[in-house]
Amino acid sequence: QELEISWPLFVFFSSDIEISRAQSPKAVDVLAKEIGLLTDEIEIYGQTKAKVRLSLLERLKDQPDGKYVLVAGITPTPLGEGKSTVTVGLVQALTAHLNINSFACLRQPSQGPTFGVKGGAAGGGYAQVIPMEEFNLHLTGDIHAITAANNLLAAAIDARILHENTQSDKSLYNRLVPVVNGMRGFSPIQLARLRRLGISKTDPETLTEEEISRFVRLDIDPSTITWQRVVDTNDRFLRKITVGQANTEKGFVRQAQFDIAVASEIMAILALTTSLQDMKERLGKMVVANDQKGEPVTAEDLGVTGALAVLMKDAIKPTLMQTLEGTPVFVHAGPFANIAHGNSSVLADKIALKLVGENGFVVTEAGFGADIGMEKFFNIKCRASGLVPSVVVLVATVRALKMHGGGPNVTAGAPLKKEYTEENLQLVADGCCNLQKQIQITQLFGVPVVVALNVFKTDSPAEVDLVCKIAKESGAFDAVPCNHWSAGGRGAIKLAQAVEKAANQKNSFKYLYSLELPIVEKIRIIAQKVYGAQDIELSPVAQSQVDRYTRQGFGNLPICMAKTHLSLSHQPERKGVPTGFILPISEVRASIGAGFIYPLVGTMSTMPGLPTRPCFYDIDLDPITEQVKGLF
Amino acid sequence: QELEISWPLFVFFSSDIEISRAQSPKAVDVLAKEIGLLTDEIEIYGQTKAKVRLSLLERLKDQPDGKYVLVAGITPTPLGEGKSTVTVGLVQALTAHLNINSFACLRQPSQGPTFGVKGGAAGGGYAQVIPMEEFNLHLTGDIHAITAANNLLAAAIDARILHENTQSDKSLYNRLVPVVNGMRGFSPIQLARLRRLGISKTDPETLTEEEISRFVRLDIDPSTITWQRVVDTNDRFLRKITVGQANTEKGFVRQAQFDIAVASEIMAILALTTSLQDMKERLGKMVVANDQKGEPVTAEDLGVTGALAVLMKDAIKPTLMQTLEGTPVFVHAGPFANIAHGNSSVLADKIALKLVGENGFVVTEAGFGADIGMEKFFNIKCRASGLVPSVVVLVATVRALKMHGGGPNVTAGAPLKKEYTEENLQLVADGCCNLQKQIQITQLFGVPVVVALNVFKTDSPAEVDLVCKIAKESGAFDAVPCNHWSAGGRGAIKLAQAVEKAANQKNSFKYLYSLELPIVEKIRIIAQKVYGAQDIELSPVAQSQVDRYTRQGFGNLPICMAKTHLSLSHQPERKGVPTGFILPISEVRASIGAGFIYPLVGTMSTMPGLPTRPCFYDIDLDPITEQVKGLF
Repeated sequence: QELEISWPLFVFFSSDIEISRAQSPKAVDVLAKEIGLLTDEIEIYGQTKAKVRLSLLERLKDQPDGKYVLVAGITPTPLGEGKSTVTVGLVQALTAHLNINSFACLRQPSQGPTFGVKGGAAGGGYAQVIPMEEFNLHLTGDIHAITAANNLLAAAIDARILHENTQSDKSLYNRLVPVVNGMRGFSPIQLARLRRLGISKTDPETLTEEEISRFVRLDIDPSTITWQRVVDTNDRFLRKITVGQANTEKGFVRQAQFDIAVASEIMAILALTTSLQDMKERLGKMVVANDQKGEPVTAEDLGVTGALAVLMKDAIKPTLMQTLEGTPVFVHAGPFANIAHGNSSVLADKIALKLVGENGFVVTEAGFGADIGMEKFFNIKCRASGLVPSVVVLVATVRALKMHGGGPNVTAGAPLKKEYTEENLQLVADGCCNLQKQIQITQLFGVPVVVALNVFKTDSPAEVDLVCKIAKESGAFDAVPCNHWSAGGRGAIKLAQAVEKAANQKNSFKYLYSLELPIVEKIRIIAQKVYGAQDIELSPVAQSQVDRYTRQGFGNLPICMAKTHLSLSHQPERKGVPTGFILPISEVRASIGAGFIYPLVGTMSTMPGLPTRPCFYDIDLDPITEQVKGLF
Repeated sequence: QELEISWPLFVFFSSDIEISRAQSPKAVDVLAKEIGLLTDEIEIYGQTKAKVRLSLLERLKDQPDGKYVLVAGITPTPLGEGKSTVTVGLVQALTAHLNINSFACLRQPSQGPTFGVKGGAAGGGYAQVIPMEEFNLHLTGDIHAITAANNLLAAAIDARILHENTQSDKSLYNRLVPVVNGMRGFSPIQLARLRRLGISKTDPETLTEEEISRFVRLDIDPSTITWQRVVDTNDRFLRKITVGQANTEKGFVRQAQFDIAVASEIMAILALTTSLQDMKERLGKMVVANDQKGEPVTAEDLGVTGALAVLMKDAIKPTLMQTLEGTPVFVHAGPFANIAHGNSSVLADKIALKLVGENGFVVTEAGFGADIGMEKFFNIKCRASGLVPSVVVLVATVRALKMHGGGPNVTAGAPLKKEYTEENLQLVADGCCNLQKQIQITQLFGVPVVVALNVFKTDSPAEVDLVCKIAKESGAFDAVPCNHWSAGGRGAIKLAQAVEKAANQKNSFKYLYSLELPIVEKIRIIAQKVYGAQDIELSPVAQSQVDRYTRQGFGNLPICMAKTHLSLSHQPERKGVPTGFILPISEVRASIGAGFIYPLVGTMSTMPGLPTRPCFYDIDLDPITEQVKGLF
């Protein structure tokens, strides 16, 4: 039968209903009405998805925000510990079982891995977003829009270099500022560039030769180009390529690469932006290379800011979907969690916080373990949004804790060793050091933490009790076992109650570092206070990059560490709580439009590959019923 | 005020209304209702676009088809002669002014050129599809879906070669047919491959070593790969690239290229398919390379058919939009007009023919001049659909005719010479040979032809009269001047009346050649009868390709000529009606899934570039009003 919610007071009759995986989603316009959206505030995409207009923020600007909950995790195994299912289970519990308004704000998954090697990204079991295939495929086209914008900028860079290298100043000027209907005029974006060059003239006929030369030549140093092309496909053969080998490109070959689309800086911008105006400014500020003098060259210099904004005009609107129990979900933005900050969008959170009302809850998720995803959520995302989190839910599993306690390796695809399927209290107890450390990290930010133990059927009651006991002794406000995977929201009711209580605690949220500190000092604070490193060590390359960004005026941006998520340290094999290590910084890069500096701790792959048997072997479409098979 | 139509009897009050460019489109659900669509037959995308479900064809299967009109053109100047505006003007005239049900079926434009050098693709002036920015940008994501599907297949090819080159038969087999929960089983797509290999076993444990080897090795010859990656961006630096240069790819570098997305065979398939089942079969049949023995390797062999179909499951549904005068339009598929057939989709035409009813009209457009676009429409598209066209509208301009009569060069961007802005009856009379030839080409197919003279304000009445007179003397059923650009549907009323009369003529439609003829013979028939060539000449490469396709069993496919559109011959500078030329065929390729062989007459660029001043310089988004500026 149809599950229904009404808003702002949810009436939900399913506490004892066995929720079927075959649950049909309600029509998205019905859902939109239930949560108080006006007809002209949504743009419907098919039966189960709708984009929500930003005008909503203006209409509800005087409405107080709801409570803001972050779901983070302990250092995970390669299998993941279930943060997404906890997020979905928690809102299902809050709204469908406790009659408290709530919203889950999730990341849009990259489509590429869906056809490669993949775990679900929409939760799972009885705690998931439906319809799964819509969530995991094109959704409402945001990643496609990012790909288009990213690649237009990439094409503009190489084409510009070619045109500058093959034309005189005069010829470039005649083409850039052509005579149209007998008149010659600068476009607005060209006038802006003139102003940046300190040229206040507006009549193209009055520029001196020297001014023309400065205007027409970006003088990009090809060896400094950091802007890469992207595709939303796992295409390992694009990891390193040579471009420009056709005769028409006249020998201007260079080495380049494709990243997976979600690694684009434009994705990070989409996740951090607060308005259309802000997005346009960030897009214009993106630094793509340096010129021959070492000065940054931006998208704005290339004249492409407006076009990028046009391509992104719909992507900026969050997409409304629903959980298996009919409660509302925003899906919006999914930046990489290593070279970017790995959190869903500020805009979705802001809109949801207004929609749930003062006593409602917005639950969102941070990528990777709390040492990475949560740290970035606080220091980068909360800085961009100005929002203050009320509670952190820290997800743990007995499996991961046993691994941290010295259990054998856990690898995707291989069967689990018996340590993980039989009771072993000693391994659990020993592994809780990682949980304890992640709790302490949360406490650095002054936010109460509730531990959610995602229970598997192989976990013994004694193991579960032990984890909860140690968590509470380690400073967690509460620690509760959850069974949302098998029981839906009903399995997360205790968690929901604990979160509600914790949200009423005194909250003394603070950032970890001041933006005014030097880049290296900010990196050191994260490494020492969060990761437990003894110190950091910059390579000579990294040091010179820090110096250049500082000189270019980018020194006061927050830091986005690109580190493995499989250990608190930089060495994935070191489990538990590693100590005494020196964190090596091999390179330091920057996403100036998104607004962060990202140090690389080791090499980060930005393009996954296809294995021998990609999961597309099992994916099929029934041409009669139109049903998708094998996607999950 | 709001323009309205009702269906099946249109009531339209605008004959004397000055139609504003600022016309707001009616809500697409209102439009859908007017034309008789049921609520569950549409999937709305925002306010002005909706996808239409194929289930409609089943519901209306007993409804007789309407009249089927093709808009083609004479050999054009590089500026284009206005086929799209005629198409839109004609349906506006039919429906909004003559109360006759009609539908325009148009191609979706490639997004890449929108930001490069571009003429509008949605008509123009008072004969256009609105909203223009929705039409020209992401639309409903079909091209993005094609890009995703195309590139998944490309990634699968290179990854497969790598895995085969670095693993033993046994290791490949263990990975391709893994033990899952203690069991090992073939997936359905693997069983299908076994059957193609003549192995009837279904238990993975029973294959012999030799069978295993044949099963696990596609043995692709990298030098024969014809499947290219695509992006919907004008990125000239991707015309020729080297891929696989990262260490992780272990030295398996090869030269490759990116095409613009609409050049993908998957786009041609989308345009020619008749159902989900048919699309899936065509996707599976796509040949991507040969193996080391010279046998074709298909998408199905790579195990990716189902995944491609899943990625394309929404793209197969046509998108409903509207003209400036509120009449319905389908926008669906936009394959290249040289290496593919350049026509919008069969499915949109089929659905529209049912919706307009027996006395209604469906108007669609063929790319390029009639010698290319129309020939392919008849011989390729009509063969795929089984539909019989009623009338051809042949679009001409005084400008193009003067060019054919010996007028100076016409180049995009340069001001027109005075021959084109002042009356010159001699040039017009001399140039009508091209019009006459294109009329004769149409008559080869037994379909009545109406000439639509797209009138510019610089055309003199005497010039206009002369063209119409010669057209009628040359065998056109009628020839009428049109002013839809400046006057909307009102400016095309006479054309609409002529088309209606012509549609009641006796129709003796026939294809130009039998599919059973040898490939070379089919090419010769097109070259001689349509282009007026003396003969054809195949390069040795082309001849060996013909031999291979024939041997592989692809000899009975129709032919899709990849020839310049700027001349009836292969030499763009030869205007009028060139004679005595030998058409050189440099290569012969094939799109087996789409279902045609395409001979290359010279080199065809499949990736446009960005000029020194791309049109993105003028494109901007107002962050307050959200309006797009400078796109047209």
